[in-house]
Amino acid sequence: MELKGFFPVWDKLTEEQKRQLESASSLRRLSAGELVHSAQTDCVGLLALRSGRLRAFMLSESGREITLYRLFERDICLFSASCMVRSLQFDVSIEAERDSEFIVIAPEAYRRVMEQSAALANYTNELMATRFSEVMWLVEQVLWQSFDKRLAGFLLDEAALEGSDKLAITHERIAAHLGTAREVVTRMLRYFQAEGLVSLSRGAVTLKDRKGLAAISK
Amino acid sequence: MELKGFFPVWDKLTEEQKRQLESASSLRRLSAGELVHSAQTDCVGLLALRSGRLRAFMLSESGREITLYRLFERDICLFSASCMVRSLQFDVSIEAERDSEFIVIAPEAYRRVMEQSAALANYTNELMATRFSEVMWLVEQVLWQSFDKRLAGFLLDEAALEGSDKLAITHERIAAHLGTAREVVTRMLRYFQAEGLVSLSRGAVTLKDRKGLAAISK
Repeated sequence: MELKGFFPVWDKLTEEQKRQLESASSLRRLSAGELVHSAQTDCVGLLALRSGRLRAFMLSESGREITLYRLFERDICLFSASCMVRSLQFDVSIEAERDSEFIVIAPEAYRRVMEQSAALANYTNELMATRFSEVMWLVEQVLWQSFDKRLAGFLLDEAALEGSDKLAITHERIAAHLGTAREVVTRMLRYFQAEGLVSLSRGAVTLKDRKGLAAISK
Repeated sequence: MELKGFFPVWDKLTEEQKRQLESASSLRRLSAGELVHSAQTDCVGLLALRSGRLRAFMLSESGREITLYRLFERDICLFSASCMVRSLQFDVSIEAERDSEFIVIAPEAYRRVMEQSAALANYTNELMATRFSEVMWLVEQVLWQSFDKRLAGFLLDEAALEGSDKLAITHERIAAHLGTAREVVTRMLRYFQAEGLVSLSRGAVTLKDRKGLAAISK
């Protein structure tokens, strides 16, 4: 199950602890768009991502979204096992953004080993701190960055992730990533288009001037 | 130094670990308004609050603020020791909101014990999760609550904290708590005043209709 590759502290676990984690692990595949974890589902467990991409997002009561962070190959998703940490009192939803394959570690088993192993507990601490840092970056963006900066930065990030200047994404989806309303996105994209930064077509945004977008995003 | 009272896992530490933490502890007092920790200062250490009140806030490059959370008697402040956790990549400022007395535990000593003790590492995990949850609540508020709700909720919370309906606070300070501009606060407070919910005077806001404010904040 190659958990070793996901946990730099693996060698600090006892053979019995390794065995406990391994026997609590199972392989799972999801197709792009499928939900891994939400406020309504049970505590799935820790996810160790072998391939694909996951998106963690927050969902408001009225159905609005904002992307908190993405998880890539070799990342570990902690919040799908939030029941493990008593004081985690918030709901994060996690979906497969691409076809994904991951190892699920049952939360009870992980918790048991974490209670015995200072190495694993400290590593889990680092994992949480990493996500916390990403969320704090987001708070700064939302509070103190103008929307044109955030949108220009988002388009550049997406182009880098997709390896293409043509993004197959609707204004609605962009709004869900950035935690705003579709109209706000449409208005700013039209402004970007008028400035020659992007071109818009049905269900797609094409970057036309990366340098111009980069200048805005700074 | 009564660290025992702050750490529910104290009895799970060895005598040597207890001694290490105790000998790395010192008592410190600050007056209301003094800064305990900021991006510019060194990594102070963990703070165990004996009395008073601390405020953790984020500061933008342009000097804007938002209150992240408050710490009260018997709370432990982790982010003043952020150097302890490598992956904590963000800056939080912490100030004494009232005259405060606290025990400072040197970060290196705490880290050393945490690396040996699964109990302390797991407890630190819970501390971080608690703060994380408070910040996520804030993200929801900022993203999805209208400003009138947030302001009404803030005034009610402050009145409860101060034990008085007359709050000695400027519009500027309210703006710093809520992460917005002073003008936005002034405009909404004038609207609240016109509705008979508060009365405004120089450097003070007096709550006149708690039920009305509570109805708005829901």
